[in-house]
Formats: sequence, C-alpha cells, structure tokens
Amino acid sequence: MSLQGRSLVTIDDFSSSEMEGLFALADKMAGQRDQQYGLCTGKVMASLFFEPSTRTRLSFESAMNRLGGRVISVTDPQATSLAKGESLADMARIVGSYADIIVIRHPWEGAARVVADYAGIPVINAGDGGHQHPTQTLCDLYTMQKERGHIRGSRIALWGDLKYGRTIHSLIFALAKFGADILFCPSPGLEVPEHVIKKLVMEYGGEVRKSVNNGNTSANTKKPPHKEAVPLDAIYITPSSPHQLAMMPGVDVEVELKSGVDALYVTRPQKERFSAAEKEQDLKHKYPVVNKELLKEKAFHRSMVMHPLPRVDELAYELDSDPRSRYFQQAGFGVPVRMALISLLLGTSGTKTETSKENIPKSMPPYRHDGDLRCPNPKCVSIQDTEAKYIRPKFVIADTNPFTLRCVYCEHGYEPKFIASSEWHQGKLENKRYYRADSRWARQIRPENLIVFTSATEAEAQGFKPGRNTKEQER
Amino acid sequence: MSLQGRSLVTIDDFSSSEMEGLFALADKMAGQRDQQYGLCTGKVMASLFFEPSTRTRLSFESAMNRLGGRVISVTDPQATSLAKGESLADMARIVGSYADIIVIRHPWEGAARVVADYAGIPVINAGDGGHQHPTQTLCDLYTMQKERGHIRGSRIALWGDLKYGRTIHSLIFALAKFGADILFCPSPGLEVPEHVIKKLVMEYGGEVRKSVNNGNTSANTKKPPHKEAVPLDAIYITPSSPHQLAMMPGVDVEVELKSGVDALYVTRPQKERFSAAEKEQDLKHKYPVVNKELLKEKAFHRSMVMHPLPRVDELAYELDSDPRSRYFQQAGFGVPVRMALISLLLGTSGTKTETSKENIPKSMPPYRHDGDLRCPNPKCVSIQDTEAKYIRPKFVIADTNPFTLRCVYCEHGYEPKFIASSEWHQGKLENKRYYRADSRWARQIRPENLIVFTSATEAEAQGFKPGRNTKEQER
Amino acid sequence: MSLQGRSLVTIDDFSSSEMEGLFALADKMAGQRDQQYGLCTGKVMASLFFEPSTRTRLSFESAMNRLGGRVISVTDPQATSLAKGESLADMARIVGSYADIIVIRHPWEGAARVVADYAGIPVINAGDGGHQHPTQTLCDLYTMQKERGHIRGSRIALWGDLKYGRTIHSLIFALAKFGADILFCPSPGLEVPEHVIKKLVMEYGGEVRKSVNNGNTSANTKKPPHKEAVPLDAIYITPSSPHQLAMMPGVDVEVELKSGVDALYVTRPQKERFSAAEKEQDLKHKYPVVNKELLKEKAFHRSMVMHPLPRVDELAYELDSDPRSRYFQQAGFGVPVRMALISLLLGTSGTKTETSKENIPKSMPPYRHDGDLRCPNPKCVSIQDTEAKYIRPKFVIADTNPFTLRCVYCEHGYEPKFIASSEWHQGKLENKRYYRADSRWARQIRPENLIVFTSATEAEAQGFKPGRNTKEQER
Repeated sequence: MSLQGRSLVTIDDFSSSEMEGLFALADKMAGQRDQQYGLCTGKVMASLFFEPSTRTRLSFESAMNRLGGRVISVTDPQATSLAKGESLADMARIVGSYADIIVIRHPWEGAARVVADYAGIPVINAGDGGHQHPTQTLCDLYTMQKERGHIRGSRIALWGDLKYGRTIHSLIFALAKFGADILFCPSPGLEVPEHVIKKLVMEYGGEVRKSVNNGNTSANTKKPPHKEAVPLDAIYITPSSPHQLAMMPGVDVEVELKSGVDALYVTRPQKERFSAAEKEQDLKHKYPVVNKELLKEKAFHRSMVMHPLPRVDELAYELDSDPRSRYFQQAGFGVPVRMALISLLLGTSGTKTETSKENIPKSMPPYRHDGDLRCPNPKCVSIQDTEAKYIRPKFVIADTNPFTLRCVYCEHGYEPKFIASSEWHQGKLENKRYYRADSRWARQIRPENLIVFTSATEAEAQGFKPGRNTKEQER
Repeated sequence: MSLQGRSLVTIDDFSSSEMEGLFALADKMAGQRDQQYGLCTGKVMASLFFEPSTRTRLSFESAMNRLGGRVISVTDPQATSLAKGESLADMARIVGSYADIIVIRHPWEGAARVVADYAGIPVINAGDGGHQHPTQTLCDLYTMQKERGHIRGSRIALWGDLKYGRTIHSLIFALAKFGADILFCPSPGLEVPEHVIKKLVMEYGGEVRKSVNNGNTSANTKKPPHKEAVPLDAIYITPSSPHQLAMMPGVDVEVELKSGVDALYVTRPQKERFSAAEKEQDLKHKYPVVNKELLKEKAFHRSMVMHPLPRVDELAYELDSDPRSRYFQQAGFGVPVRMALISLLLGTSGTKTETSKENIPKSMPPYRHDGDLRCPNPKCVSIQDTEAKYIRPKFVIADTNPFTLRCVYCEHGYEPKFIASSEWHQGKLENKRYYRADSRWARQIRPENLIVFTSATEAEAQGFKPGRNTKEQER
Repeated sequence: MSLQGRSLVTIDDFSSSEMEGLFALADKMAGQRDQQYGLCTGKVMASLFFEPSTRTRLSFESAMNRLGGRVISVTDPQATSLAKGESLADMARIVGSYADIIVIRHPWEGAARVVADYAGIPVINAGDGGHQHPTQTLCDLYTMQKERGHIRGSRIALWGDLKYGRTIHSLIFALAKFGADILFCPSPGLEVPEHVIKKLVMEYGGEVRKSVNNGNTSANTKKPPHKEAVPLDAIYITPSSPHQLAMMPGVDVEVELKSGVDALYVTRPQKERFSAAEKEQDLKHKYPVVNKELLKEKAFHRSMVMHPLPRVDELAYELDSDPRSRYFQQAGFGVPVRMALISLLLGTSGTKTETSKENIPKSMPPYRHDGDLRCPNPKCVSIQDTEAKYIRPKFVIADTNPFTLRCVYCEHGYEPKFIASSEWHQGKLENKRYYRADSRWARQIRPENLIVFTSATEAEAQGFKPGRNTKEQER
C-alpha cells in the first residue's frame, strides 16, 4: 500500500517502515533543493489554520512552495464562513473541491478526522486541540534518526507539560512503534493523561514502571537542587512481550539513568489549555527549567536537547550555544520532512515507500449499539453545536477491565458505570438485565452485543432491570 | 467587444451570450486541468477581502493558482491602511499599480464600482454589502446549464432570505436576462426589496404576478404542514413584451407549480445584515427548512436543490445524499468558472467570447443637476466619511411614475417629493417654480432638466416658488 | 563588496552608489516585466507583518511574485507564536531556516536589527516602530531621480509630521548622503526629533540653519493665510565641510525659497504613535493642508508633490489631477524598486552594483562598560520582556559635548548625568571617582574606558566617590 491518497490524522496512520521511507525522502529533499522544484507543479495545498501558528504553517507553506506547488491559506478563524456557523464537513467538502491536499489546525479534538472523512483528498493534521500533532512527531523522529542514526533502543526523556502537549502524545506512540524507551519527567500536576498510558499499554504492548523516587523527590532534602529538578515519574520500557500491563513499583531511577538518555525532550507549559484552577495555582513556580546546571547531570552528558518550540522560560537561552542543543535544527527539518510528506501523499515524489502492517496498533472492536451516547470530552469535535447535526458518535471498546470505550474522534476514554447485552436472553423482554461494569457478567458480553449506561436510571429508562447483585453492589 | 480589460461589478456588465461563452470556457478549464497551468504565468491577482469569506476567496485564489498566476491577499480589514483612514480610490489606484487584476469583497454597497473606477485594471466584485455578488451568480447559472443543458425557459424557485441575500439580487437579473421564470418563496419579512423588483420590471421587462396564496397561507389550516412551508409570494414571468409592470393578482400557485420547478434555490438568513428589530423577533422560528419531507412535494420531484452556501439550519443534512442535491457541485464549479472569468478579463484565455448587445439592460437617463443630493442608503459607499471627500453622487432617472432616482453606486432607489425644471421659463428668475413629483407637471420635464427636492423647504431655499397647485396638493 | 547576502535595516546600510546601482536595476525591472519572471524561481520570501500594512506588504509580495519567487506571509500578529511569548530571535532563526529572505514590519524600534542578527539570511526592514522605513526611502529617492534626473543638489521640503514619521527619518539621512538640501516644514509640535538632527550633524556633517520666520509666523498677521501655512522651521544644507554644528539663526526663508523647491514631501499625522497629550490637543486643527491654494506659492511652481501614503486630510483630492502630483507614481515604483532590492540581496539579479565606502556614515566608538545600562526608549526592542532575556544592550558614544550614548538597536540618544573612567588611576580603589558629564574631566576620558551613571546614587552604589567639584556643581 502506497502513501498516495492517504491522510495523516494521527501518528497511528503510518507504520514505522513508512516513516523510515519518508525520512529517506526527506534526506533527498534537504540535499538537492533545486531538484525538488517542480515535483508538485500545478498542485494546490489548502492551509487552514484555526489556531495561532507561525512555525507549523510557514514550514508547510514553504515546503509546498519549494516543491513548486501552490498554497491557499486561511489564517484568521474570525474571517471565515465558520464564523457564519458552517460545519467542518461542509467546509471540508468544498475546500476538497478547490485543492489537492489540505493541512488543518483546529482547536477541537478530532477535527482533522472529520475533515479527512469528508474532504475526498489527502488531509494532514497540523494539530487538533490537545489531541495530536503528528507532523511535529515526524520532525522529532527525523532529528533523532539524523543525529543518532537510529531510534530503536534509544532512551528519550520527556520533560515538562506531558498533559496538554499534543506533540507529546503523538511522540509517545511513535517512540513505542520504533521500540524506544521513554522516561516521563512531568512537571507536577502535568502528568501524561491516563487515556494515553492506557493506549500505550493496550495497543502498543507497553510496560510502565513507576519510579521509586516518585512522590518523595521534594522530601529528599539532601539532594542538590538540580537533582530535585528531575521529576522522574514513570519509566516506560517498550517490551518485546506484547500486551501486559505492568505498573511495577520500585524501579531505581538512578540505575535506569546510569547509562544516560539519548535525548531530553523539553516542552513549554501549554497555558492556553490549562483549566482555570491550573492557571490560578501558577504552575510557573514549579515548572522545571532546563539550563546549563541541569545538563551537568551525568545522565545528560551525551543527550541531545530537543524542544518543539516555541519556548517561554523552560529552556534557558544560555543553551543556544551548547553543542548538545538541537532544537533549531529540529525546527529547520520541518521543511524537508513536510516536503517529503506532501509529495508522498500527492503521489508526486517519484519514489515508493516500503509499507508493512508491522507496528500498526492493534485494532479495537467497535461499539455497535445505537444510543444516545455522547463523547464526554467537552473539546471533542463530535459534540460541538455545528457538528452534532451530522456526526454520529463512534466508539471502540478499548478495554474490558475496567470497561472502557474510546471515542474514535478525540480518542478520549470513557468508563461506563453499567452495561448490558443486546442478546435478549432467548428473546424475552423480561430478561433484559443490566449489570455493574466491573462485575463478572461484564466480561461475558461479546463486544458486538455491548450496551453501556452512565447510570442505573438511564438503564431502567430503556427498559432494563437490575441483574443479580447489581443493586447490592451499588453504594 | 471582447471581455479583455473589462470589469465585472454587477451581473448587468455581461450579456447572456458573453456568459455562455464563459461557460464554454469553464467546461474546458474543468476538463483539462493541466493544460490551463501557464495561461496566466507572470500575472498577479490582488485578492482584497474586507468581509469574512472562505469559499469565495479560496476559490478565486485556487483558480488563479491553477492558471499559473500569482496571488497577493488582504484578508483582515483591521490589518490594512484602510484602518488608517485611507479611501477606496487611493487603495484602488495603488493596488492597481501592483497587480494585473483585482478581486474585492467589501461591506459598503457600491464599493466594487468605486474600485473599478480608479484601479485602471480589471476589477471583479466578490460581494459588496447587500448589493451584488455576480460571480456566485455565474456559478449558479453554470450549474443550471450543466445539469439541464439550458437556462432559458427554466422555472427557478428562490427560497428563504430574498431581502438581504446579495447572491439573490444578482441571480434575479441574470435569470431575467436568460428568460427563465422565477418563483419567489421568501421567508415572511424577508421579501425581495422593492428596488430590485422595480429594476426587474423597468429594465428587464419583467412581469410580476402576485400569488393568490399570498398572505393567507398560514390561515389555510387544512393544508399539511409541509405545504404551508411553501411561502410563495410572487411569480415572476419573463415576458417577451417589454416594459410593462403587471402586478396581476390572482395567479393560482397550484396551477403554476403543477409542471414543477427545475431548481429550488435555498438561501440562509443573512443575519449579519438584519436590522435590530429583525434580529429581535428571531426569524429562525419562521424560517422555512428544506428537508426530505418538503421535497416530497410534487413540484419538487425533479428539482435540483441548490444553495450558495454556507448553510446554517435551513437545509437539512439528510439531503446531502439525495440525488437532487447539487449544492456541493455548485460550490465546486467555483474554480473552473472563476478560472474562465479571470483569463477572459486578462485576455489570456486564447479564446474569444461572442459578444452582443442583446440582453444588456435598458440604459437610464442620468440625473444632471449638480446639487446636494446624497444617496439615502446608509450602506452606500458614496456617503461614507472617507469616500464622500472625492465621490460625486451620481443618479439615473429610473422611473417617472412615481419619479425615482437610482444611485449608480449601490443601485438603491429614491423617490423625491418635489421636482422642478432647470429650464427657467424664458430665463426669468421669477418663473422658477417647483411642483409635486406626482403632479402632471412632473412628467413634462425633460430628464436633462430635472431638479429634485426632498422637501418644499429645500426647494424654496434654492429660490424656487411653489407652482400652480403645489401648495394645495400638500397635506 | 556586493549586496548579495546583506540586509537592509537602516538606510545607512547602503552607500549612495549602491542605491544608484539599485535604481538602474529598477529601471530594467520596470521596463521589461516579462523578462524578470524567473530571476527568483525556487526562492522563498517570508513576509512578516506585525503592524497594519497594505501598500508595503502587497508591493513586496507583488515584487517577489513578479520575479517568479514564492511568498509565505504572517499578517496577523495575534495569530502567531509571538502571541505565545516567543522571542524575535527564536522566530528569526526558525523562519531563517524556512525561507531565503525575510521582510519584517514590527512595532518595536530596532526589531529588524535583532531579526537580521539571528536569521542567517538577508533581512529587509519594512518599518520598525518610529525608527526607520528604508525601502520607502528607496522609492522616494527613485521617484526624484526618475523625475529630475538627479538627487544631488535638489531642494526638498519635508512637510507635516516630522516627529513620528519613520519614513521621514530614513529619508533625511538618505538625502544627506546624496547631498540634497532639506527644508523642514513641521506641523507645530511635530518637529524632527533631536536625536535625528544630532545624527545628521555628527555623522553626515550636516549644517542646520534656523529660519528667521520660526516662531513668529503666526504672529505676522499681514501675510496671506496660505503663506502662513508654510511653517518653515529649519533649513538644512548639506555642506561640503564636514562635522560642524551650525545652528545659524537668521536665515531668510524668503530668499532660500526664491529658487523654489524641487519636491514638496507631505506626510500624514502618525496619530497611532501620538502621546496621550498630543492626541488630546487635536493636532488636526493646526495640521497644514496641501491644496491648490498652497501650490500657487512661487516656491512650489515647479515642485513635485510627493507623499508616502496613505493620506488622510493633509493632501487635498483636488491635487490628484495636478501635473505636479507624483504620489501615485511614487507608490507604483514600489514594485520595481523592491524587485531590484530582493534580487540584489539574493544575488539573482545577474548584475553587479558598484559599491564604495563613500557616504557611509562615520562610525562611532562603542561603549564598552558592562553594566546595567538599559535603553531609555520604552519602544526599544532591547528592553521588551521577551527580548531582554537574551539581548545585551549595546551603545555607541555618539557625542562628547554633551556626552551622548546611542542605542545600536533603536538609535535613540541618551545623555547620562555622570561619568567615570575604568582606568582606576594607578589601580588604587580609593581613586575611583565620578564626575559630572558636562565637566572638563568628561572630555579627557578615552572612549574605551567610559562608564556612565544616571544618578550620583548609582555611581556611589558602584563604589565611586564624587570627584573634585562634582558635588558643588550639582544643584
């Protein structure tokens, strides 16, 4: 399967060998700049940015221009027909008839998926709320590959805001695909979201180990301040054994770090996505700063320092001249990587990427029951006023212990309280029973028959009666 | 006369044969996309959008890019020198020296006319307030032509906001040119403006018939709801006999609809142009919705469903899969139609359009008196602070019964109360008399001598005395 | 030295012979438009506008497109990563890796210098606050050259807001380079800033003469109103004798004007930069209007009327048809002049500009002391929150009588109250003395040893004691 005609909505859409093919093409794009001009002559890229951006938009537009293609842009969300109440689907269909490829950034999570569903042309997600930012991940991986020659087996420390950084979420899954080890170093309160960890474990067969340091780092007053600054929370090791959730406490971070990390990946606090409470408690005071002092740590002696940029205060300017700093190169790779991506999706690169099914995440059974279920994520595209008119919510069954549905748009997880089976035992209405989602009955329901409820009231309103033990178990 | 070097400000600027030539070229543009790249190499289009737009701007920019030309854009009215108080004329002259063709959208009615007057290069009106939007009309007509093979003799129902929809106003005159029948189905309170009807009758020789259903549709409680939803207000029949205003009551709508309409042209409520009162009374509740139920009407069995988009709630998503729906194709035709238009105006199409004088609307005598007359339309470009410094108001005498002046910029009509003749009877000052505009004297004044007054006070301030009977007739 | 790879931040960056070479190329660009398409094929220009603009941005973008190059744009300061707190240096480095040349407009004075320092590619200043706008000056000079055949020896009257007009500041230095005479005709309260006059005198060897009319123009009630309207403030004559400040009172303006001026250069009030007090006193009432009446003055019989546009009310529309008016041509020259500039900086013009050191302003000794000195200009880029993290303030010693430091970013002057020498007389700490900046000691300190203080307190806090007479002289 070639990449031609496909979309890049989440990093799951590409296998690791497809990405490696893309990186080889990016080398060529960077090397012989003049020879690429003309690869996309006559093609038009629509660049639709409904959130602020300089770097991402300009690098996409520069990439298309360097390929000889043309660009039409939307940069001001207020100056578009979306301000008149138009839906994403309508916009996608129409722009899909004007252009050959769409690049979209949007504040709603899952927005790029909707656009890809309706546009009829390849769509590239340039960031959808706090969900994903897969082309940033391609640049990150390409930087690692260029600098170290390989990604597999590397040890990457992710630093700072691991909660709201969409670049972080895309990167975690990609590193898992490539078999790299990830060390989470979140700023307190900005840990990796549970649904991301769950996807890592369930679909990528990840193994998560909690650090012994976790929680008592600040209590250990004997450590020098720059050691305290390493808020190691969890060490994630990509295992060869698939599908086994191992939250193993007691890993010794000091030992794990002895061999050093290959890359320290720093992120800024994504204040624009903070909740009101988070804004108030001024996370700035606790936010760890990466500076010369920190980089004296033995673990970072050979580490590349990376950052998706823009930076605010978390990465000191004094590091700009440090030979380990790679963030400006990382940004500069944005153009050749995106040139490669655009020409592959348009099928104008003249090269074929090797494709394979390996590393494609395990697919989850769909939730089939037609009900009133709405995604509980307030930023999900599927529940917005203009979109709910035509989008039918869709979920997959991501886990059975505990029972977890995942929205196919924003990929947020949702744990229902009660469940039932659509197999009405022998077709008798009086047999319609509902059970607690964590009961033993739950695991006996086949995915295609699953019905979920938010509350007992909801279940009973739909004609179900409590099953054996359902009531007693309730608090 | 070729289209090269000409502007498209109102749909009146093109004859029906010129439009047919343009449609033939649009077919070519759509068919052999690669062969058009290069037709406009080295040409620069300035795309100046002072009002929100996605569709129109992007389709113009895509069109120019697909022709191999280049685009320079203004999309944010706040980020321009107009915010520094610059006039449209100055902007037009300057941009006219930077570019080869200008596309402009502006909230002031008549703005595109001013830009065309000063730019020195072809100017395309992409919407000027509530006045006109002629390229949307070209797309609409092209869709009808493609789908039915002809426009002449078609029956088109216009649905919804016929008051503020500038696309509607352009379309009405164009359909008249092509000899199509128009059925007005306005949302109550959003009827076609009087000045549009007047122009239709006076200049295009239209015949207007009032429906018998008008006014008592909602009283007829026996009709099924979806029948009530057809608020037929007037049926316009393009006659072969020119110039005869026929407001004939008593047309039977049922009979008229029996043969069915060829196209149902739906529009959204243009809320951004609603008056405060209109906003308050929440027209949404009365606004007719086009959905599957309505399309079961016999009249619509074979109708194309069209919409200039964006839609809000007036066109149900359930129709997207209906084979009669054509609104996405209609939007998609925006690119080839605009490619044809741009290359014709720039003279780079390599084809000649057949031109003729037929269907050019009857020209009206100009109002020649130099006075203080200002256009009464508050949105008219000619009375805006920055523009009134250099624009001399211009009017034509659109009618003599009642006496009606029409502004050449925004085309709004104006009925003066009193009139006089500049022929001072035998040159004697004491003979300067003024008369009621609806008196028998009025019709004896030759157009080149006409002077109009808003009030008796104004006339007397200018040294005129009341003529015979002028005073008595006053209330 | 060729222009290839260089930046244009202030008009000082080009010598007069380099500008003449550029004008010759602009002639070629204007003349054979089609032959220039392709000169910049494959090159990308980043057009970064952080302040409103139509004319400047569109003419740059048109220029690059007419050369066959490509453009990526930022037009809305709110929609960029600068809104996320990113520094200019980071933005410059990153955009420098996406594009081949940068054009930047920014409200902070000195912003273009910072971008040029970090981008690694040629940078063109398209206006930085009230500091400079050198490409407007190139258009102005090109207009004079085209119309009169020469600039040297011309007499140019600068009219209106000479305080806030950045185009005026760039133009003054350029005219000095070319040896033109300048007559200042400021609107009262909007005179040329002292630091500009000082630079003119110190670096360009200018001679400034005050007009006898100054101050009593409005008192002279016998003059006709249009004569009063000529608010001649100072006449600047470029001398052949260098470096001599001659504020010679008593020049007879009538005599000076007898031979007439070659160009009347009108500017609008730059209200967006007015102080609150200036806004309040409504300068409009006093702002001189250039109209037909004024141009009847003998001095203006043969004058070109120029204006950088946009105009507001200071230049009457009635002059648009006057044969002396050149402002629309001046604007139109924006495209060929900028085509020449871009292709010279990119080294794609195929021509060599003759370069020489003549007319490069005298270089000033740097201020070497590392202290807490901050530029006192609140609009200077070097003191802004995001920039002060990495910019080290830099000053040159612009004058010694009175002692004046000039910021290398915004070029504002700064007169310190007290000074000292870093040569601790014989290395003895007790010899650390500070002196008044206007004392005879001041002039004995060598530039490389200079230390300046804002106050005696500051000096004493740094361990200096008052020198002989320092205290007595203090009020």
